[in-house]
Parts: sequence; C-alpha cells; structure tokens
Amino acid sequence: MIRFSVADEIFDRPSFWVKEGKIELIDQRRLPLEVEIISAGTLEEQIHCIKTLGIRGAPAIGSFAAFSLSLALDRGEDLEKTYNALLNSRPTAVDLRNCLDEVKLAFMDGGKDQASKTAFNIYGRIMEACRMIGENGAQIIPDSAKILTHCNAGALATMDWGTALSPIRVKKRDGGNPFVWVSETRPLLQGARLTAWELLQEGIDHRIIVDSASGYLMRKGEVDLVITGADRVCANGDLANKIGTYEKAVIAHDLGIPFYVAFPKTTIDLKCPDGDQIPIEERDPSEIEELRDSRISPHGSTAFNPAFDVTPAELVTSYITEDGVFSRTEFLKMYIKKAPL
Amino acid sequence: MIRFSVADEIFDRPSFWVKEGKIELIDQRRLPLEVEIISAGTLEEQIHCIKTLGIRGAPAIGSFAAFSLSLALDRGEDLEKTYNALLNSRPTAVDLRNCLDEVKLAFMDGGKDQASKTAFNIYGRIMEACRMIGENGAQIIPDSAKILTHCNAGALATMDWGTALSPIRVKKRDGGNPFVWVSETRPLLQGARLTAWELLQEGIDHRIIVDSASGYLMRKGEVDLVITGADRVCANGDLANKIGTYEKAVIAHDLGIPFYVAFPKTTIDLKCPDGDQIPIEERDPSEIEELRDSRISPHGSTAFNPAFDVTPAELVTSYITEDGVFSRTEFLKMYIKKAPL
Repeated sequence: MIRFSVADEIFDRPSFWVKEGKIELIDQRRLPLEVEIISAGTLEEQIHCIKTLGIRGAPAIGSFAAFSLSLALDRGEDLEKTYNALLNSRPTAVDLRNCLDEVKLAFMDGGKDQASKTAFNIYGRIMEACRMIGENGAQIIPDSAKILTHCNAGALATMDWGTALSPIRVKKRDGGNPFVWVSETRPLLQGARLTAWELLQEGIDHRIIVDSASGYLMRKGEVDLVITGADRVCANGDLANKIGTYEKAVIAHDLGIPFYVAFPKTTIDLKCPDGDQIPIEERDPSEIEELRDSRISPHGSTAFNPAFDVTPAELVTSYITEDGVFSRTEFLKMYIKKAPL
Repeated sequence: MIRFSVADEIFDRPSFWVKEGKIELIDQRRLPLEVEIISAGTLEEQIHCIKTLGIRGAPAIGSFAAFSLSLALDRGEDLEKTYNALLNSRPTAVDLRNCLDEVKLAFMDGGKDQASKTAFNIYGRIMEACRMIGENGAQIIPDSAKILTHCNAGALATMDWGTALSPIRVKKRDGGNPFVWVSETRPLLQGARLTAWELLQEGIDHRIIVDSASGYLMRKGEVDLVITGADRVCANGDLANKIGTYEKAVIAHDLGIPFYVAFPKTTIDLKCPDGDQIPIEERDPSEIEELRDSRISPHGSTAFNPAFDVTPAELVTSYITEDGVFSRTEFLKMYIKKAPL
C-alpha cells in the first residue's frame, strides 16, 4: 500500500481502486506537493487520466484500463469502441493491450460479470506479482547496496509494492539498509516527484540527481547495481522503458555494474520479436519547452520528446519477475518457450 | 558576435565587454526570454555574476576574471586578495586560473598598465582562438551532419564564436546545412535556454531533447557526431565538462560515433596529470529540487548536484583547438611535450 497523510489523517491505499462504479486514484500529476484523491467515472475521464499521466506505469495502466473496460461494459457501452479507445490511449506499455485482451475475451466468453471478475483478478494478480518481484529481487541486493533507479517503478506505477522499487522495499523491511540514487527523469520528473516521495514514505535513504549524473556516479564507484522497470519486454529479451534507461544500461555494462529489470508477466509481449518493433510514444514537445506553463526555451526552438527507449537484451544482467530472477537464456526458456539463444 | 534585438534595436555584441571601468554583459541567467545587458562595477558584483552564472563557460569565465582582476588593480585593490577571491569563485574550469595567473604575472612585471594590457590581450586572443577552432573544426563536419552537443559552448560561453558551436557556425557560413540536437542540460538548462537561443539567432536548424534522449538518438542513427566544449583538459588528455558529457562519450564510443572536444589553449591544465585530479564543483541542491523557486521534489528529499564529470581520453576521437584537429597522441605531442602514449 501507499501510506500518506492528508490533513492529519493517515491513509494506506493502492495507487487506484474501484468504488461504486468509478475508479478512484491518487492523482499523480499533482504529487508530491499535493496529495489528492480524484474520481474518474466516465470512459473519457479515465482515458484522460491515462493520457495525462494521472495514472501511469505499465502495470498500473494495464489494470486501470481493464477496470475502465469492464465498467464501460457494465454500463452497456460498446465493446470494440471502448476497447480501441483504451488501447490507443498510450502506445508503448504492452500491459495495456494484454490486460484489455483478457477482459475482452472474458466478456465474449461470459458477459459483463465475467469481464468484471477478470478485471478484479488482474488487479489482485498484478499486486501479488509485484510483492513476489520484491521477495525474489531482494535476494540480489547486497545489504547496504547503493542502487540507481530511473523514473518511477514503485507502488504508484503498479498498485502496490512496485516493480523496481519492490525488491528495495523488501530489503528494507528485512533489515537491510539500501540507499537509492533517484534519477529525476525529465521531462515529467517522475523520479524527483514520485520515486522520492515513495522512498520518503518508506523511510528509505535516497538522493535525487539529474539524469545525466548517473554515469558520473557509476564511474566513481557510487553505484552497486542499477534496477529499473519495463514497459514492454520482447520475445528476444529486448525491452522498452522510460527514455534514458538505455544510456544507464550501456554505462553499467561498460563499467561491469549489474543492470536488472523488474516487471510482472503482463509486461511481456510474445508477439514482438525484438526491440526495434516496439512503438515508441512521442509526447508533446511542450513537456520539454515549458515548465509549469512557463516557457524555458526560446520561442522558435522546438523540442523532440520520445518518452521511451529500447535496451537490448545483451545489456541486461537479470530479469526479475514474480517467478524468480532469470538470466536471458533462462528468461527466454521460461516465458518464450523457444530454444535458448 | 552575438546578434540580438532589444525593443526593435539590433545589437551585435560579445558575451561581455569593458566600458568605463566596468564589465558589461548579457545576463545569461535571464536568457532566452529576456535579453538584458547589465553592468558589474565592483569586484563583489563581478564575483556574484560568475558564481550565479550571469557569465559562464570556461573561456568566458577566464577572460571575465582577468578583467575583474585588472580593473581591481586599477582601483588600487590588493593583488593577492583579489586574485584569491576570483580564483575561488568556481573550481572546475582551469581557464580561470590560467588567465588570472597571466594577469598577476603581468602586474608583478609591469604594474597595472601591463595587467590591463594583458587582460585585453587575453580577451582578443580567446576570441581569435574560438574563430580558429571554427575554421579548423568545420573540416571534420560533413555537409548535412546531424550533430549532438551538450550544455552551451557557444559565443555566450566564450566571447564570440564559441568552442563546440564555432565549427557548426563556420560550416553554416560556408554553405553547409548542419542540424543540431540540443541536449537541454539539467539542472540549469544551458542547452535549452542558451544553445537553442544562439542557434536560432544564427539560423541553424535544431531540436531540443532531454539529456537522456541522446543515447536513443545515437542508437537510431540520428547522430553523425558529438561535439562538446571542455572546462579543463589534463596532461593525459582526460577532460572535465558539464555533467552528462561522460555518458554521451561512452555511448558514442560504444556505437562508433565520433566524439570531439573543442577548446582554446587556456583550457589546458599542464599541472593536472589526469581526470581524477580535477576538482568537481558541487552546486546547491536547490538547483535540482526547485524550478523557478517552486519546489519539484518532496520536502525531506534532497538532491546531489555535481556540475561536471570527467571523460577519459580514450573516449575522445579528436581534440579541436585554435591550432588544429588532433588525435590524442598528436595533442599530447603538441601541448604536453612528453613522449606520446
């Protein structure tokens, strides 16, 4: 759960939940300085939340969209139209498609009750998967490890525990003393805003750095391991994650620092042969050109804003899922069922 | 010169100049949205300008401080006290020490007139060196090259022409069609604010990216070469430059993309044996934690803010100076006068 206080009251909540036919969520656009729970009742409101990053993180988007679809079906809305509108809300994280497909199949198989049951099942399953990612991943974290992470792959990006942050939380719970370098993650600062906020709630020691300081720290011996989440893991082990992940993987590889990726099975895309086939979302240039609606760069200069990059499997030390910690060969054998490379 | 307009009047100016015993400068803290010329008359005002990045860039700091010292000596202020105050204003760029040493020696040799003559000589010499960096460096730029740069190493960082940007300006002047990826350069956004503004004035096509998108673009084949400035080049060819330079050098090296460094001779530190000996400035965490005085990260989370990193000589394709374009071996032979490695 995510523990936070609003007006002296202490809450323990997942990143979102369903209440009376609506989805309630911690509004991630306003964190960390304002903690606000908002309610999204219509499909349009829910899609707006996804597109504007009120809710974000590959597993959270998948489960949130599964609820959006099942609630729309409950209201008697059209399957294909709703499915497509949700599927097109963000392109890179495959959890979205995987979770929507599961609800769609359930609806075709058993109607709206089956669809609803499936959406709740996905929600519980991902939450449990993230807990297990923590239990499995904690084994690869030395007791007082200095860990570099990027973006936010915590409870806010899932529903509870997180992916990259889950092993760190478990390590802390079990008496370890992990330290986290939080890469701020431009342009939308999910590291400085969300990961720092989560670590603060959990009492985990950390410092925020600009994204391009991670190489400096790795070269100085200040990073024992790198761990990130993923938005899509391909059938050859390549993966997409927040822009900047690839750079960290290259430098870690160059310096012999382990680079781990943590994700639940919903992030695996069996249909995607390799990283070059992953659609990379390009977001609005204004996210870079402006800060809080005020211009940074000169009028006349425009930005290019890819939100993700691709890290080749060769740079990954291990894959951490709810089932264990796997080398590339083991990962492919476990999930892809092809001859190992 | 830097061409800009204020209230419909068009100016052609260097980044700073001396007028009636004061230093006038384009205030780089306010660019690009406000173009303001300010005047720094006292030593305290001048040091404040250096510390708060009203003036910045290794060659510009060196020449600006040379004037600050000679003007203070003109006013009868104490040599050692003034020298030390200026020397301690910023730690990483060695041009500061090199230029101050030259003025100090001149003063000890020939008094304040000699000191003043030397400060003007440094100013003219660096300006001419930057022009020559352009002439020399333009030869390594293909006609329609896509070039990645980091931070601002343009006319604002020198007095005219720039270091990394000078070859690009010359290429454009000579009919080439260079395109520049401008890495925004957190935390103070010298790329998005200053480099973009300079390129816009020069009519050079460019797009701004977040710092951590450069690896993505390099891997996609969208970068033909990388070129940056330097704040200190050691006796073994290692160099310090804006935080993030090292990451770009590692990735360029990994992908076989040429990585060039451009600087005048004032940036060479013969006394510094290698990059590990370079003092790296740590700036105030608030530069990362806040944006325009408004908090980004949660209260309770703090940032770590190293302003520079070190790039080992092994990652540098060529060094570009006023004297030519040099491999590491040639560079060491030319300037260090030791047996080549």
